[in-house]
Amino acid sequence: MNFISEKAKIGKNVKIGNFVTIYDDVEIGDNSIIESYCEIGYSNGREQGPLKIGSDSKIRSHSIFYAGSIIGKNLVTGHHVTIRENMKIGFDFQIGTLSDLQGESSIGNYVRTHSNVFVPHFSKIGNFVWMFPFVVLANDPHPPSDVSTKGPEILDFAALGAGSIIFPSVKVGKDAVVGAGCVLRKNLPDRQVAVGNPARIIGEASKIKLKGTNNPAYPWRRHFHRGYPKEIIDEWEKEFKK
Amino acid sequence: MNFISEKAKIGKNVKIGNFVTIYDDVEIGDNSIIESYCEIGYSNGREQGPLKIGSDSKIRSHSIFYAGSIIGKNLVTGHHVTIRENMKIGFDFQIGTLSDLQGESSIGNYVRTHSNVFVPHFSKIGNFVWMFPFVVLANDPHPPSDVSTKGPEILDFAALGAGSIIFPSVKVGKDAVVGAGCVLRKNLPDRQVAVGNPARIIGEASKIKLKGTNNPAYPWRRHFHRGYPKEIIDEWEKEFKK
Amino acid sequence: MNFISEKAKIGKNVKIGNFVTIYDDVEIGDNSIIESYCEIGYSNGREQGPLKIGSDSKIRSHSIFYAGSIIGKNLVTGHHVTIRENMKIGFDFQIGTLSDLQGESSIGNYVRTHSNVFVPHFSKIGNFVWMFPFVVLANDPHPPSDVSTKGPEILDFAALGAGSIIFPSVKVGKDAVVGAGCVLRKNLPDRQVAVGNPARIIGEASKIKLKGTNNPAYPWRRHFHRGYPKEIIDEWEKEFKK
Repeated sequence: MNFISEKAKIGKNVKIGNFVTIYDDVEIGDNSIIESYCEIGYSNGREQGPLKIGSDSKIRSHSIFYAGSIIGKNLVTGHHVTIRENMKIGFDFQIGTLSDLQGESSIGNYVRTHSNVFVPHFSKIGNFVWMFPFVVLANDPHPPSDVSTKGPEILDFAALGAGSIIFPSVKVGKDAVVGAGCVLRKNLPDRQVAVGNPARIIGEASKIKLKGTNNPAYPWRRHFHRGYPKEIIDEWEKEFKK
Repeated sequence: MNFISEKAKIGKNVKIGNFVTIYDDVEIGDNSIIESYCEIGYSNGREQGPLKIGSDSKIRSHSIFYAGSIIGKNLVTGHHVTIRENMKIGFDFQIGTLSDLQGESSIGNYVRTHSNVFVPHFSKIGNFVWMFPFVVLANDPHPPSDVSTKGPEILDFAALGAGSIIFPSVKVGKDAVVGAGCVLRKNLPDRQVAVGNPARIIGEASKIKLKGTNNPAYPWRRHFHRGYPKEIIDEWEKEFKK
Repeated sequence: MNFISEKAKIGKNVKIGNFVTIYDDVEIGDNSIIESYCEIGYSNGREQGPLKIGSDSKIRSHSIFYAGSIIGKNLVTGHHVTIRENMKIGFDFQIGTLSDLQGESSIGNYVRTHSNVFVPHFSKIGNFVWMFPFVVLANDPHPPSDVSTKGPEILDFAALGAGSIIFPSVKVGKDAVVGAGCVLRKNLPDRQVAVGNPARIIGEASKIKLKGTNNPAYPWRRHFHRGYPKEIIDEWEKEFKK
C-alpha cells in the first residue's frame, strides 16, 4: 500500500517498503531501497527542482526527504531521518537515526554521522568527516537574527564528538578532533583537539594514543578502515608508511 | 488511505495527507493541513477533553498530538513532533522537527522552537519566546521524585540557545538570553545573558553587537521581524525609536 | 490496514493499531498493544534470531524494533523509539519518546528512560536505573576506532541527569547521581554525585535534601515509589527503617 507518483523516476531494481509516499519530482538510482513509512520528495511549494538520490542507496523507515536536494550513490540512512531542500551531498554518505539536515548546506564524500545530528542552513562539511551522536551545528551568532547567518565549516577527516556544539562560522580544521560535550566558539586549527565548555585547545590530536597500543589514535585513518574502499585504504596506508 | 473518526470535527477546506489517523475527540480549524503519517487526538484512556487545533494550521508528517490540548490558530510544526495532553498553547506557535512537549504546560503566542526541543510537565513559556535546537527544560530538582515538581518559567522575548539546559523552577527573565550549551541552575534576570556550564551571568544582552553593525543584537525585536504581523512590528519600531 | 507476517507468533488478546508492519521472526506476549505506524522485527539481513517481547507490553506509535532482541514483560515505550538487535532487556522497562538503543547491550529490570536517550553498542545497564532526557552514553574512547570499543556500565539505582554524557568504559556506581549537563569521563563511585563539564565529584548523594523537607533525596527509593510493585516498595521501606 503506497502512494507513488507516476512522474517519479524510479531506477531499476528499486525495492519499496510499505506505506511509502513518493512525490512527483524525484529520481531514485538503480538498486536502491526505500523502506516503509518514508516520505520522499516532500515540498512546501517553495522547494525548487528535483530530489535526486544516487544508486545503491538505502533509506530506512520513517525518513523524510525534501525536493531540491542532490545526493550521491551509496547513501545509507538510519530511521526517522529528515533531509531538507537544497542539500548537495556526495557519495557514500551515512547518516544516523533521528538526524536532521535543515537544508541549504553541502556535504562531501564518505561522511558519516551517528544518531541525532543537527545541521542547520549554510553549513559546509568536507569529505570523510565524522559526526558522533547529538552533535549540533549552529548558524546564527546572536539568534534570532538575519544578518550574516552562516553555519560552521568542517574540514576533511575532522571528528566531532558526541554532544558537541559548534558555533556559527567556526572552522574545524582538517584532521581536528572536538571532544564529547565540547562547546566550540572559535576556529580549531588542523590536527588540534578541543575539549570542554568553553572549549580549550589541548594540543595535537596525534598525541592521543590508540587504546592498548603506543600508536596515535589520530588521524584516525591511520588505523580505522572499516567500510572504505580498498583504493582509499591503500592511499592512507601509503601516507602513514612514510 | 486514512483512519478518520466520524466524530472528529474537521473544519472547512482542511487537507489531509496519506496514512493519517484522527481519533474521536478532535476539532481542527478551517484551512488547516494535516500531513501524512500523523496521529491526531491520541489517548491512553486517561487524557481528558478534546484536542482543539486552531484554523490555518500546518502539521507536518509523522507528528503525534494527544487528546486534551488546546492550540491557537496558525500553528506550524516540523516533522516527528510530539505534543501531549493538557497543553494550553497560544496562536502563531511554530515548533521544530523532533520537538517533544510532554504536556501539562502553557505556551504563549508567537513562540518559536527549532528542532528537538524538550518541554516537560509544568513548564510555563511566555509570548515571543525563542528556543533553539536541543534546548532541554527540566522539572525535577532531584530526580526521580514527586515532591514539588515544577518546570522553568520563560518570560516574553527570551531566547534560549542551542543545547542549553534550564533547571526546574528557574525563571528566565524578559528579553534575557541563554547562550548555547549553557546549563542554567539559577534565575536569570530580565535582559541579562548567561553562558557556560555552570552558567555565569555576563551582563546586559544589549551590549552584544549585531554582527557587522554597531547596533545592539538584543532585544532581538529591534532588528528581527521576519514572520511577525505588521501591527506588531510597528509597535516594536515605535518602542526602539524613543 | 496492516502488514503482519503469518509466521509471527502473536499472543492472545494483543491489540494492533493501524499501518503496522510485523515481520516473520517475532513473538509478542499476551495482552500487549502494538500501536500505529510501528515496524516490529525489522532486519537488515544480518540480525539473528527472533525478537521476543514479553506479555502486557505497550509499544507506542512510530517505533521500530529489530529482530534479535529479547525484552521482558510490561515493556512500555514512548513514540518514535528505536530498539535495535541483540538487546537483552529485563521486565518493566519504560523507555521515552525518541529514545534510541543501538543494540548489543544489556538492560536490567525496572529501568526507566525519559525522552531522547541514546545507548550505543556494548553498554551495560543494571536494575532500577533512571536515565533522564537527552542522556548520551558513548562507547569509543577515540572515535572512530575499532579497538576495545566498550560502553559505560551503569549500576543499580543510579540516576543520570538530563543532557549528561557518559564516556566509554566509565562505571557509574550503585545509587550514584550524575547531574544534568554533566560530562563524566571517569568512574563515579557508589552513592556519589558528579556535576559539571568536566565532571567534579561533589560528595555523597544522601546529603542532597528532598525539597521542602529535611530528608535525603537519595537513594531515591527512600521516597519515590510510583509505579513499582508493593513487594519491592515494602523491601525499600524496610531497608531505610533500620
